[in-house]
Amino acid sequence: MDDAVNVPDIGAFGRMLGFRVTEWCDGHVRMEMDIRPEHLNRSGVLHGGIISTLLDTACGYAGTWCGTKGHVRWAVTVSLTTHFTGQARSGTLITIGRKRGGGRKIFFASAEVQDENGQVLGFGDSVQRYRSGSEDPEGIPYRAPT
Amino acid sequence: MDDAVNVPDIGAFGRMLGFRVTEWCDGHVRMEMDIRPEHLNRSGVLHGGIISTLLDTACGYAGTWCGTKGHVRWAVTVSLTTHFTGQARSGTLITIGRKRGGGRKIFFASAEVQDENGQVLGFGDSVQRYRSGSEDPEGIPYRAPT
Amino acid sequence: MDDAVNVPDIGAFGRMLGFRVTEWCDGHVRMEMDIRPEHLNRSGVLHGGIISTLLDTACGYAGTWCGTKGHVRWAVTVSLTTHFTGQARSGTLITIGRKRGGGRKIFFASAEVQDENGQVLGFGDSVQRYRSGSEDPEGIPYRAPT
Amino acid sequence: MDDAVNVPDIGAFGRMLGFRVTEWCDGHVRMEMDIRPEHLNRSGVLHGGIISTLLDTACGYAGTWCGTKGHVRWAVTVSLTTHFTGQARSGTLITIGRKRGGGRKIFFASAEVQDENGQVLGFGDSVQRYRSGSEDPEGIPYRAPT
Repeated sequence: MDDAVNVPDIGAFGRMLGFRVTEWCDGHVRMEMDIRPEHLNRSGVLHGGIISTLLDTACGYAGTWCGTKGHVRWAVTVSLTTHFTGQARSGTLITIGRKRGGGRKIFFASAEVQDENGQVLGFGDSVQRYRSGSEDPEGIPYRAPT
Repeated sequence: MDDAVNVPDIGAFGRMLGFRVTEWCDGHVRMEMDIRPEHLNRSGVLHGGIISTLLDTACGYAGTWCGTKGHVRWAVTVSLTTHFTGQARSGTLITIGRKRGGGRKIFFASAEVQDENGQVLGFGDSVQRYRSGSEDPEGIPYRAPT
Repeated sequence: MDDAVNVPDIGAFGRMLGFRVTEWCDGHVRMEMDIRPEHLNRSGVLHGGIISTLLDTACGYAGTWCGTKGHVRWAVTVSLTTHFTGQARSGTLITIGRKRGGGRKIFFASAEVQDENGQVLGFGDSVQRYRSGSEDPEGIPYRAPT
Repeated sequence: MDDAVNVPDIGAFGRMLGFRVTEWCDGHVRMEMDIRPEHLNRSGVLHGGIISTLLDTACGYAGTWCGTKGHVRWAVTVSLTTHFTGQARSGTLITIGRKRGGGRKIFFASAEVQDENGQVLGFGDSVQRYRSGSEDPEGIPYRAPT
């Protein structure tokens, strides 16, 4: 993405996992993450918690895009469901999130994680709540969390 | 835990996050994890995906305890729900998982993540499927995943 | 229940299914329903949708008890999960709901449906949102919906 | 539908609610239901449990279509999630279900309930388990449940 306005801060845990946001617009997000050995569980496959993390993150971004330069929108996850439909040990994961509805305070979003061959590894839905000021599509001036 | 038989391998991602299993018996598990700066999201609070990871892991352990020395039981997560009821920025998390029912092939488990003051940060339920051989409470001889 | 203040209106669909509220206090509800032939699905067992209905209803009541005579509290279900752990064809079902947390606008509740032998048929969790005025434990004067 | 092979038995509860299957093929189902006064909750809107019932039913049908005349496939719901995105008091509901994946024993399906204007009232996902014999797309000879 060449438009810095639209690049979300992925936060410390996002950097630890190594995912990146490759598309972001109103109601939509696309993320990528390369599977690393430290992402695997005791069975040697991608830990399900990482799939949940990607879904949660994508659902949050899908509802908080803001086109105003220097502004940001924040949401808190209320609930998340994950359905695990496949497994992976390596390669690049693609996560697509989309906003599905909601009102001023709460929104619903769904997301799906695929491997690089298009096999769906997991999908889920989330309820998210806008933090005060973030209901507005214009968002609020960015200030780093303390 | 002083009985090595009962210590589960937490896997690479468990080591990356830094959680530890402090109690494990048939149908029950207790885990701990110290929150680190790299566990935080872009809002500066514990990433929800880590709560989901802890719930998923605890639900899996709750149904796969095996008392036979050198044996192990494996399960695959089919689905997971997470409800986010609180936030944390630091301190030690306690996760309790318990098996709630099921049959030979599938089991249900629930788990809860608390901070060190007993505030519930999240809770959820999971459907898990035993891998072949693991339906038996005696489990199967341990062999490292390849 | 001998205190008419505390008997919730179960609504038209509640009367169609035939459930009754047998205990209701702050954060807790207990309901009963006798399984009838018209509650069964094409496999001849209790339809899962009725288990979801009981869970949804119990979760809603668990967070909307109001001790003020003639007042009422309303909530809207945001999301509901159901895990189906058993089956039944006849007998009396007992549903227990309890509030688990939340803030002024949103609350979380869990519920469980048992048959008369204590076998758990299903359990689940719900996110509910208070309607305007109902955040207050005193509720608002009852007015029939139009 | 003019092909009797493809008309599923909706069961006693389906007849009580009054829904009908209007499309059914491999991996897909479409159902309709006219809202009646007895479907409403104590707030005077469609009871959420009916939305869950429609989602559950549609998810089950989406994975159990069988093209062999006189044969049938049975599934048991393992889990169901429902997200409530809108309300209705009258009119005809349309429910679309689709199978999303799975293996021999378990399948995943998603469904959505819309009002007649296309407003989404609820959506959700389900884990379903095939009953013995029903994993096979050819199904098993129909025998009424006893």
